[in-house]
Amino acid sequence: RQAALAAAREDEEEKELRQRFMAPPVSGLRELRRRRREVRSRMELLIMETQAEMCRALAALDPGASFSVDSWERKEGGGGISCVLQDGEVFEKAGVNVSVVSGLLSEEAARQMRSRGKSLKAKDGKLPFCAMGVSSVIHPKNPHVPTMHFNYRYFEIEEADGTIQWWFGGGTDLTPTYLNEEDAVHFHKTLKEACDKHDLKLYPKYKKWCDDYFYIKHRGERRGIGGIFFDDMDSPSKEEVFQFVKSCAKAVVPCYIPIVKKHCHDSFTPEEKLWQQLRRGRYVEFNLLYDRGTKFGLLTPGSRVESILMSLPLTARWEYMHNPPESSKEAEILEVLRNPKDWVH
Amino acid sequence: RQAALAAAREDEEEKELRQRFMAPPVSGLRELRRRRREVRSRMELLIMETQAEMCRALAALDPGASFSVDSWERKEGGGGISCVLQDGEVFEKAGVNVSVVSGLLSEEAARQMRSRGKSLKAKDGKLPFCAMGVSSVIHPKNPHVPTMHFNYRYFEIEEADGTIQWWFGGGTDLTPTYLNEEDAVHFHKTLKEACDKHDLKLYPKYKKWCDDYFYIKHRGERRGIGGIFFDDMDSPSKEEVFQFVKSCAKAVVPCYIPIVKKHCHDSFTPEEKLWQQLRRGRYVEFNLLYDRGTKFGLLTPGSRVESILMSLPLTARWEYMHNPPESSKEAEILEVLRNPKDWVH
Repeated sequence: RQAALAAAREDEEEKELRQRFMAPPVSGLRELRRRRREVRSRMELLIMETQAEMCRALAALDPGASFSVDSWERKEGGGGISCVLQDGEVFEKAGVNVSVVSGLLSEEAARQMRSRGKSLKAKDGKLPFCAMGVSSVIHPKNPHVPTMHFNYRYFEIEEADGTIQWWFGGGTDLTPTYLNEEDAVHFHKTLKEACDKHDLKLYPKYKKWCDDYFYIKHRGERRGIGGIFFDDMDSPSKEEVFQFVKSCAKAVVPCYIPIVKKHCHDSFTPEEKLWQQLRRGRYVEFNLLYDRGTKFGLLTPGSRVESILMSLPLTARWEYMHNPPESSKEAEILEVLRNPKDWVH
Repeated sequence: RQAALAAAREDEEEKELRQRFMAPPVSGLRELRRRRREVRSRMELLIMETQAEMCRALAALDPGASFSVDSWERKEGGGGISCVLQDGEVFEKAGVNVSVVSGLLSEEAARQMRSRGKSLKAKDGKLPFCAMGVSSVIHPKNPHVPTMHFNYRYFEIEEADGTIQWWFGGGTDLTPTYLNEEDAVHFHKTLKEACDKHDLKLYPKYKKWCDDYFYIKHRGERRGIGGIFFDDMDSPSKEEVFQFVKSCAKAVVPCYIPIVKKHCHDSFTPEEKLWQQLRRGRYVEFNLLYDRGTKFGLLTPGSRVESILMSLPLTARWEYMHNPPESSKEAEILEVLRNPKDWVH
């Protein structure tokens, strides 16, 4: 009788969890429950929750459209869940992906990590790893609604002597077509509050890292107005970093959704749409030429190309020698992309 | 009196040369005339002629539009002439650029060349170089007119002991939205004839190199239906390689212009236009992720970004999980991009 009760309770829990998420988690609910105290399992639940929260918040704003949900497996180990809404009323393309992959690190990936200062002592040339993350890019239709990107990820690598190297990385950043100071302040303040709960040094450090990372070198401009970005975060402790990442992930919806609500019915001109398309072109340049995540993804054997490149906009444009006139609204945003501002002091 | 006659003759020649080209050559006519026997000067004249021939042939097909001609200087040495026609009736974007740059090779560029097997012994870490080329990408509006790209270039590097390493590179290749076998055969045959005049081994070798080079690895498909591609060509002799490159450059117009003429008034559907836009997206992926010329250009200090990135289409599109139905015209071209064909035997 007790066994039957336990089984019924488990079924109930499973149903509940399935409803909470966009699809069953890669590692399986039973396994996640069994290892519920491990950060690895808690992180997988966090990224699944973040995916579901974001997808629901976006879908509520674009009632005619719906997310396609694809669960995929990676033959080398692990898999993921890609949720993409395309060509809606409000969103041109909105992707929210989860991936949980494991296996042996490729030579190329190990080389890249070592070049970042990791030692990584391999056993017979092999480095077992586990990487998981949630990653999202939202391209709205209306040029007065900014593009948003976030990614939170966790990495574990097992070295020759059995020790586990682990770290977290992530960030949330905004790419407006036109500058709206109020939105910029709201976005950065919400991120700052999430950071400040953990350590007052984090927001200024990760705000600068974001401005430095999303730099389109050949253009001398940033991709957007920034936010936060960090990588290789492995102190003060696994638990504390996880709590920080959790705060950041929970801040994604309050950072962005109010901005979408505020502007998604703004009127716009064909010229404003055109400027948006040119800015989309720059977004593509950054993602294909500089973004480490895109490169790492495309280099990982068995990676899912469609999920990696869902970050590209539905449409983009490149005009030869396009230069907006001085003191135009287009020149105003360019100025901020060339010289990042402090939005919260 | 003789001096006056000579000066008049020189003025006359200068006028004639100016008419032949889109703009005065970077090295100056006097200098080119003075060194008229050197391959370096003859190559500069060849790339200037090729630019003018191509621009005139394109402009004749798109009478409403005209080329903007920009001469630019590079403060580190040399400069170029960019000719771009944008948003015409027939061409969405057509760029034909010449550049003639010299100076000291950057560390990064030297590293890239050494990784290709060049020895390059530097004097006090310095490697004086001279690089010149003509480079062109033509994106037509009509999806039944293919995109075309060509590039012919010459490189000289002075080593520590004063010896000059030199080589030629280049190629011409076609990227159709839909397959037209007759066009593919015409294009490849014209290239083959140009090659065969010099050595029967060249076309097969450079046809394969082209298929290998324009490979979008993460998609498992080529950018287009190929053509020829070669690099580091430094035998049998400078004169013979120059003559080969000249034949290739002279073949550009007869390769492509008849195909444009044949199809530029073809009717097309919105679905065909959409497929073209998706293929444009793949073009961008290749150019930003893999193309060596683009990377080399963006890495060269003082390079002209607008001229390098004129290769990007005016508009492009990325749809998540777009898969054309089996035995559609879209699937037909994909099949050829996945498995390159032999067009001339």
